Amino acid sequence: MAKGLLVSISGPSGTGKGSVLARVKEKDQSFGTSISVTTREPREGEKDGVDYYFKSKEEFMKMYEEGEIIEYDEFVGNYYGTPTVALQDMSEAGTDVLMDLTIAGSMALKENFEQSVTIFLLAPSYEELEKRLRGRGTDSDEAINARLEMARQETNYVGHFDYVVVNDDIEEAANKILAIIKAEKCRCARNIDLLEDVLKINKEMEGK
Amino acid sequence: MAKGLLVSISGPSGTGKGSVLARVKEKDQSFGTSISVTTREPREGEKDGVDYYFKSKEEFMKMYEEGEIIEYDEFVGNYYGTPTVALQDMSEAGTDVLMDLTIAGSMALKENFEQSVTIFLLAPSYEELEKRLRGRGTDSDEAINARLEMARQETNYVGHFDYVVVNDDIEEAANKILAIIKAEKCRCARNIDLLEDVLKINKEMEGK
Repeated sequence: MAKGLLVSISGPSGTGKGSVLARVKEKDQSFGTSISVTTREPREGEKDGVDYYFKSKEEFMKMYEEGEIIEYDEFVGNYYGTPTVALQDMSEAGTDVLMDLTIAGSMALKENFEQSVTIFLLAPSYEELEKRLRGRGTDSDEAINARLEMARQETNYVGHFDYVVVNDDIEEAANKILAIIKAEKCRCARNIDLLEDVLKINKEMEGK
Repeated sequence: MAKGLLVSISGPSGTGKGSVLARVKEKDQSFGTSISVTTREPREGEKDGVDYYFKSKEEFMKMYEEGEIIEYDEFVGNYYGTPTVALQDMSEAGTDVLMDLTIAGSMALKENFEQSVTIFLLAPSYEELEKRLRGRGTDSDEAINARLEMARQETNYVGHFDYVVVNDDIEEAANKILAIIKAEKCRCARNIDLLEDVLKINKEMEGK
């Protein structure tokens, strides 16, 4: 059986990752969910074990040291990480997993799993990104400036990803991500079992 | 502007290329059409300049010698070829082209155009392939056996293609091909202009 794909979506804060991922999962409900571990405070409405696993910094670092977290990244003083075993298990069982990962997380995923597919979600422009960040109304001017500088640094990594999707329309961005996943499943390099079967049958038929 | 993709579909006779391609073009009417040149007799209902350019062997070889045909292949005594200039022009104008090519044609396309995407269409099994070929009712037993042996030889090349699509359902096969095309347009390697713009803007913003 072909392994499930481990698909990561990365992109600066304000790019709309959350909305796009939610739309993708509405349209295709077959994805396994990998919930991230974080040390940041839950936002209003967020639930432990659903949106994130909310952990103390001590608990988090213990998990990391014991190899239970594939990568972690610090952002505005908080840690974000992805549990490894769950990914491995879901992929081996043939389940595709769609994840919201940091840039470092996507790079670690690419390095550790051949069944990874990395997608960078880009805002249409910095003007639009700033508008979205201000529109949230949750951050101070200082925090927004820090996020914009972070976005600038992060987008320098876009070329290290397999795909880039510009999020100027949530519906279209979601469709592109679904197309990428459908297409990746058809890549010859991901269908070695099928190709081997074909060649074996051909060999058996030879000269008959 | 990004170049249009040159997408080739190859696969043994009887795999259902014709029906799948027709369905793809029904669902997405933006493709440019590259009509093949052939020396075979028109089948019932086929029109010159629509289904194929029907040429004599002399005319065909003259075109080939003058470099007007990217590849040609012989099958059951007839030649099949793809006109080069039309592909180049359509791609440069940003038009995607979807083509039914021979195996050799797809390999030549891959070699000559970086904007190529090669897809191998596979029948679900040889039993199914034989059933479809016999179902056509147009070929002798001998011709069918020749086609099956040809199919066996051709499928040995599947691993040289970018993608493999199994045609067990026309609708699903068409959707996979459309997904492949949508996904390929998002590959970082095909969005060098966009990536350069992002890095340039980042550079300008640095330290501001």
